[in-house]
Amino acid sequence: MSFRMVDLIEKKRDGNELAEQEISFIINGYTDESIPDYQMSAFTMAVFFQGMTEKERADLTMAMVHSGDVIDLSEIAGIKVDKHSTGGVGDTTTLVLGPLVASLGVPVAKMSGRGLGHTGGTIDKLESVKGFHVEIDKEEFIDLVNKNKVAVIGQSGNLTPADKKLYALRDVTATVNSIPLIASSIMSKKIAAGADAICLDVKTGAGAFMKTLEDSRELASAMVSIGNNVGRKTIAVISDMSQPLGFAIGNALEVKEAIDTLQGNGPEDLTELCLTLGSHMVFLAEKADSIEEARKMLEGAIKNGKALETFKLFLRSQGGDAAVVDNPEWLPAAKYVIELSAKESGYISEITADSIGTAAMILGAGRATKESEIDLAVGLILRKKIGDRVEAGESLVTIYSNTENVEDVKNRLYKHIKISAAEVKAPALIYEVITG
Amino acid sequence: MSFRMVDLIEKKRDGNELAEQEISFIINGYTDESIPDYQMSAFTMAVFFQGMTEKERADLTMAMVHSGDVIDLSEIAGIKVDKHSTGGVGDTTTLVLGPLVASLGVPVAKMSGRGLGHTGGTIDKLESVKGFHVEIDKEEFIDLVNKNKVAVIGQSGNLTPADKKLYALRDVTATVNSIPLIASSIMSKKIAAGADAICLDVKTGAGAFMKTLEDSRELASAMVSIGNNVGRKTIAVISDMSQPLGFAIGNALEVKEAIDTLQGNGPEDLTELCLTLGSHMVFLAEKADSIEEARKMLEGAIKNGKALETFKLFLRSQGGDAAVVDNPEWLPAAKYVIELSAKESGYISEITADSIGTAAMILGAGRATKESEIDLAVGLILRKKIGDRVEAGESLVTIYSNTENVEDVKNRLYKHIKISAAEVKAPALIYEVITG
Repeated sequence: MSFRMVDLIEKKRDGNELAEQEISFIINGYTDESIPDYQMSAFTMAVFFQGMTEKERADLTMAMVHSGDVIDLSEIAGIKVDKHSTGGVGDTTTLVLGPLVASLGVPVAKMSGRGLGHTGGTIDKLESVKGFHVEIDKEEFIDLVNKNKVAVIGQSGNLTPADKKLYALRDVTATVNSIPLIASSIMSKKIAAGADAICLDVKTGAGAFMKTLEDSRELASAMVSIGNNVGRKTIAVISDMSQPLGFAIGNALEVKEAIDTLQGNGPEDLTELCLTLGSHMVFLAEKADSIEEARKMLEGAIKNGKALETFKLFLRSQGGDAAVVDNPEWLPAAKYVIELSAKESGYISEITADSIGTAAMILGAGRATKESEIDLAVGLILRKKIGDRVEAGESLVTIYSNTENVEDVKNRLYKHIKISAAEVKAPALIYEVITG
Repeated sequence: MSFRMVDLIEKKRDGNELAEQEISFIINGYTDESIPDYQMSAFTMAVFFQGMTEKERADLTMAMVHSGDVIDLSEIAGIKVDKHSTGGVGDTTTLVLGPLVASLGVPVAKMSGRGLGHTGGTIDKLESVKGFHVEIDKEEFIDLVNKNKVAVIGQSGNLTPADKKLYALRDVTATVNSIPLIASSIMSKKIAAGADAICLDVKTGAGAFMKTLEDSRELASAMVSIGNNVGRKTIAVISDMSQPLGFAIGNALEVKEAIDTLQGNGPEDLTELCLTLGSHMVFLAEKADSIEEARKMLEGAIKNGKALETFKLFLRSQGGDAAVVDNPEWLPAAKYVIELSAKESGYISEITADSIGTAAMILGAGRATKESEIDLAVGLILRKKIGDRVEAGESLVTIYSNTENVEDVKNRLYKHIKISAAEVKAPALIYEVITG
C-alpha cells in the first residue's frame, strides 16, 4: 500500500487517527530513507500536539519492532519477563532483581548496554567483578538462562533501527517530550529484545525524566496499554526519584549494595522497591498465584540464601570470581575515601538526584561521551536521606575518589543537599502500581 | 547572536514569543543552510499550532525580505503602490489597474512573473500584443515609470530566497495552511520588490485559496497588520471568487476584456472591483484626499479616454503594437469558436471557479508545468453568471479552441455550471475592506 507522506502528516495534524498500514508506511519509509527527515520531524511535531490514540500507539510500537531484528527467545522455557526502568540515579534494582527472581525459577534473559550516564550500565557495573564478561554467543546465553535462570548478554543485532533514527531526530527538533513517542520507543525496544511480559519502573520527581506524578502516570498508563494491546502483559510501578535510590552511586559500590540487599541488609528503599517490582515479575511469570504470595517467596529467597547463591552461580557462569560476594573488599577500591561533613544541624530536606549523579560522573563513575573510560571504583555513598536528622560535623556523604582534590565535587554536593531547621517528612517510595 | 535551533523550536512549541534576533537567526540560518530542513519543518509545524504574534509576523517578514536582494525604486518619484491578488480565475484586474491608476499619476512599477496556473501571468497576457516585451534593464524600467507612470519588468534578482526555500518545504510537510506563514510570505515578496504601500485583493470562495470569509478575513487582517507594522501602508479588499471574475478566461481574451473595461464597456463585476482597488491605490499614493474622490477621478479617466491612452502609451513604450487597442481583432485568434448551449432553462446557481479555470488550462491557456507552452489565443468567455436567467439552447460559454474536439472541456463545463429551477441571488462582489 502506498501513500503520500504529506497527506499522512496532514491527517495527523488535523487530529485524525492513522490506520495501521499508514503507520507502517511511515516507519518503513523512514527506515529505508524514502521518507526524509524533514517530513518525519513535521510529523512528530504534529504528534506532539495531537497525540495518538491507543490503537495508533500499539501500531507504532509494532511497526518499530518490525523495522529491524527481533530476538527469538522461544528456546528459553517459561515466560520471559523483562524489567525496565525509565532511569534514575543510584538505581541498583537490576543487579538485585536478576538473581532474586531467577532464584524462584523466573527466567531472566537480560540484554544490556553500556550507555552514557551518571554511572555505567548494568554490564559496566558487573565488570567490577574480576573475570566477569558478557562476550557469550546467543546459544550459550540461552543455555545459561535455561540452566541458571539468569544471564546477561551485550546488545547486538539491529534492534529497532527506526526508533534509533527517530530518537536522534526528535532530540534536535524539540519532539522528545511526547508521551506516545516515548512510550512506543521504550516498548518497541523491550518487545524486539524478546520479552513475553514487561515490568516497568517509572521514576518520578526531580531526578527523573518525568518530573511530576501526573506525567509519570500518563507515561506509565501509555506503556501498560501498549503492552496489553500487543499481547505482552505489562505492569508499571511509579517510584520516587526525588532523591537517589539506595545509598550507593557508582559501579563497584552498587555491586556491593546489591550483595547487601540480596543478603537482606540493603537500604530500606532499594529493598522495598526490589520486592515490589520482583513480586510483579514473579506473578507475571506465573510462578505465584498472587502478588502477596510472590512477595513472600522473594522474602524467603533472601532469608534462606537462595537469592545470593543464584547471584554467585550467575557470576561464575559468565567467568566472574564469585568469591567476591563473600569478600566484597576484593571489588575495585578507590584510593581516597573522603567524608563530606554537615556544616549545620537539622533535617535533610533535599538531595537533588540528578545533581548528585553528576557529581559521581565527575569522579569518573559514568561516561560523558561514548569514548570516556569508566572508573569502576569511584562514586558516592549517601549517609543520610531526605527526612533524616543530621548533626553539624556528621558525614552526609562518603566520597570514593582516585584523585585527592575533590573540591568541585564537594561544592556540588553541598549545593544540592539541603538541610532545614524544621522537621521534614521522607517522600513516599512507591506512588502507584498500574496494571491496565 | 547565536542560539540553538532546538531551543527556539521548543520556545515556539510551548507558545512563547520569539524575539526579533531569534527570528533572524532562524531565517538566516535556514537561508545559509546552517539550519537543516528537518529543524525548519518541525518549527513550521509548531507555528501551525501555536501561531505567531503580530510582532513575530512583522519580524519574520522583514527577516525574509533581508534574506536576499531588495529592489530599490527610490529613483521613481512618488509613492509606489503595489497591488497583489491572492489568486483566482479570470482575474484581469492587473491589466486594467496598471494604466488606469497610472493615468492619474500614480507610479506603477510592476515586477511580474509567468508562473503556473489556469492562464498565463501578466507578462504572458501582455505578450498577446505583437511586439510587446519585458526584456528591459532596470534603468530603462525606472525611466519608463517616471515618464509614463507604468511599466512592467520580468522578475530578476534573488528576491526572498528564504521564502522560496521555506515555501517548498511547507508544501511537502503539510504546513502551507498557516496564516502567519502565508501572510509573511506574501508581504515579504511585495516589500522586497520595492513597494512603499500595498493594496491587497484577498479572494474568498470556492475558487480561492481561502474558501471561507472567516479565513479570508484572518489572512487579510494579518497582512494589513504586517504592512502597517513595518512602515508600509497596507489595505485589503476581500472580494468574491465563488465564480470567475469578469467573463474572459484566457490570455488574449483577457487583454480584450481589459481594453473593454478601460473604455467603460467591461463586465460589471470586473469594473467595480477595479474601481474599488484603484481608488484605494490612488488614495494610498496620496493623489486624492479621500477614497470617494479617488473613485470619481478614476471614473473620469475612463470616461475622458485618459486610461485607454495610458494603456496605449505603455504598450508602445515596451515595443507593443498599440493599434491593437483600437483593433482588438488583431489579437491572436483561435481557429474554432464553439458555443456551449444550456441543456435546460432556469437560473445559474453555480460556476465553480477553479474547475472552469482547469477547463481553460486544458484548452492550452495556462501552464501545467514550467515547460508547457501557452496558447495565447484560446480560452473561455462566460455568457452567463450566477443569478442570470438562461433558456434551454442559449449559450452558457463560448469556447475558443485550436483543436476541433473539445468534448472533454464541454463535459467539464456542463458539470461545473449548475442550473436551478428556482431563482438564485447573485453573490456579493466585495465583502469587506480592511484598513487596519
